[in-house]
Amino acid sequence: MPLVVVGSVALDSVETPTETRENILGGSAVFFTYAASYFTGVRLVSVVGEDWPEEHTKLLQARGIDTEGLEVVAGGKSFFWRGRYEEDMNNRETLDVQLNVFGEFDPKLGEAHRRCKYLFLANGPPEIQLRVLAQCPGAQLRVADTMDLWIKSARPQMDELLRQIDGLVLNDSEAKLLSGEENLVKAGKAVRQMGPKFVVIKKGEHGAMFFGEHEMYVMPAYPTDGLVDPTGAGDAFGGGMMGYLAEQGNFDPATLKKALAYGTLTASFAVEGFSLDGLKRIERADIDRRMEQYQRMLSF
Amino acid sequence: MPLVVVGSVALDSVETPTETRENILGGSAVFFTYAASYFTGVRLVSVVGEDWPEEHTKLLQARGIDTEGLEVVAGGKSFFWRGRYEEDMNNRETLDVQLNVFGEFDPKLGEAHRRCKYLFLANGPPEIQLRVLAQCPGAQLRVADTMDLWIKSARPQMDELLRQIDGLVLNDSEAKLLSGEENLVKAGKAVRQMGPKFVVIKKGEHGAMFFGEHEMYVMPAYPTDGLVDPTGAGDAFGGGMMGYLAEQGNFDPATLKKALAYGTLTASFAVEGFSLDGLKRIERADIDRRMEQYQRMLSF
Repeated sequence: MPLVVVGSVALDSVETPTETRENILGGSAVFFTYAASYFTGVRLVSVVGEDWPEEHTKLLQARGIDTEGLEVVAGGKSFFWRGRYEEDMNNRETLDVQLNVFGEFDPKLGEAHRRCKYLFLANGPPEIQLRVLAQCPGAQLRVADTMDLWIKSARPQMDELLRQIDGLVLNDSEAKLLSGEENLVKAGKAVRQMGPKFVVIKKGEHGAMFFGEHEMYVMPAYPTDGLVDPTGAGDAFGGGMMGYLAEQGNFDPATLKKALAYGTLTASFAVEGFSLDGLKRIERADIDRRMEQYQRMLSF
Repeated sequence: MPLVVVGSVALDSVETPTETRENILGGSAVFFTYAASYFTGVRLVSVVGEDWPEEHTKLLQARGIDTEGLEVVAGGKSFFWRGRYEEDMNNRETLDVQLNVFGEFDPKLGEAHRRCKYLFLANGPPEIQLRVLAQCPGAQLRVADTMDLWIKSARPQMDELLRQIDGLVLNDSEAKLLSGEENLVKAGKAVRQMGPKFVVIKKGEHGAMFFGEHEMYVMPAYPTDGLVDPTGAGDAFGGGMMGYLAEQGNFDPATLKKALAYGTLTASFAVEGFSLDGLKRIERADIDRRMEQYQRMLSF
């Protein structure tokens, strides 16, 4: 089943304790689509400026990603983000954000996109996420990501979004902020009560937690000592998860669980390089091989 | 197989965001022995003062714990610790420590204790841990816990201890401190290179990591929304792990892995109450029931 993702496409400058990269390919929808492309056909909906290097689009197309929905604004500048990771690579500081054309982004989905059954709303203003939802009334699975900014600044729209989606993916601090609960088990349950059928809390190097109607579980991250750049890990997680669900064409509890594991593993490759470097060097078979190791690791 | 543990027995005053308890039963060896007692016979070696309530000793004895090695110093005062947990229950501040009789503790093991095959050196000065090791030349499995204080203040003795033990159990920040590595996978591997055959890194609510000669793996903590007091969770983890190994009478890789899972689950009960309250209300069958849930949770 094809999958549509609406989110940011950006140029990032990333500083880690050992290395800095300037103006590399980034953005939530980029990491998401690239990760999902190992599992299913993906249609990207986003916006860039005139400064956008065509080679980036070609890189996505080379993996079969449909970039018809990637709007190029004449005279505009692409979304830019600059961040610096602390020594332990868990915390980062945003040094610069220039929304540029993404700040005016008002996605208009084409006919093929509107008919998609699997829809992922990457992090963005809930108001925009709601407008996309309205364009896809026939979607079977609608999952959104979010961030602290919207939880703090757009709570009414956030609450409305939560009532309209099937699944929410967010990180641990966002889940605490949204629910007001310090304990993550309580936080996940509380967020699910706000509307979504399932909630996934991403804990970075500590894995992910799932909260569904009948079950709750935790999965550890795949342990790697090859961490290079955590940027986009959460988006790659979402891409692996949604890509697998779209590939399977269903989202029953067993499929969702396997999808979480695929999200975990796809993210573990993504952090092994800057930008898409960690993902670019793998094939689907590498993910499946890591899946076997992961399942062995969790058997006793 | 019986198991000997040498460590602290204390009176704790614990402040959580919602409740404070004064002078409750605590200490690393108390949490350890009580957790281990669900699996095997345990011999406790420690010291208390004249202020020690006899009912605490009786509580341990009621679970079959051998307290012959618990020395009572006439005129002395028991080890006292006071701590306060922050809102998220992950970080705590030590408000008061009075080592009292534990500060002069120089364990002299009796004949039966010296013959024990399974030995656990709970957190204490490495110099004392080394003296205990010297008294048990026939031990088959020697595992130690430690803390940042000794890593910083007694490094030569710490290094010697690492060369003499089979396993080391420590928490994530301690592993980073000991190895100088920020990545936990690198940290665990580096600590293993210092001597022990295996290293277990405890990550609190995020689970545990194992580093052996041929394998490395991660286990998530059992998710609970019933967290009351995390004090002693790491010691209960060690007790469940070592108790299971002693019960099985071997420590091959498969048994070690199962032991880590038992440690994880025993700790998950321990945090559901103050002092030993979380453990006191369970039977071995409750741990095994949670083990089934845990294994189901990790299957997909």
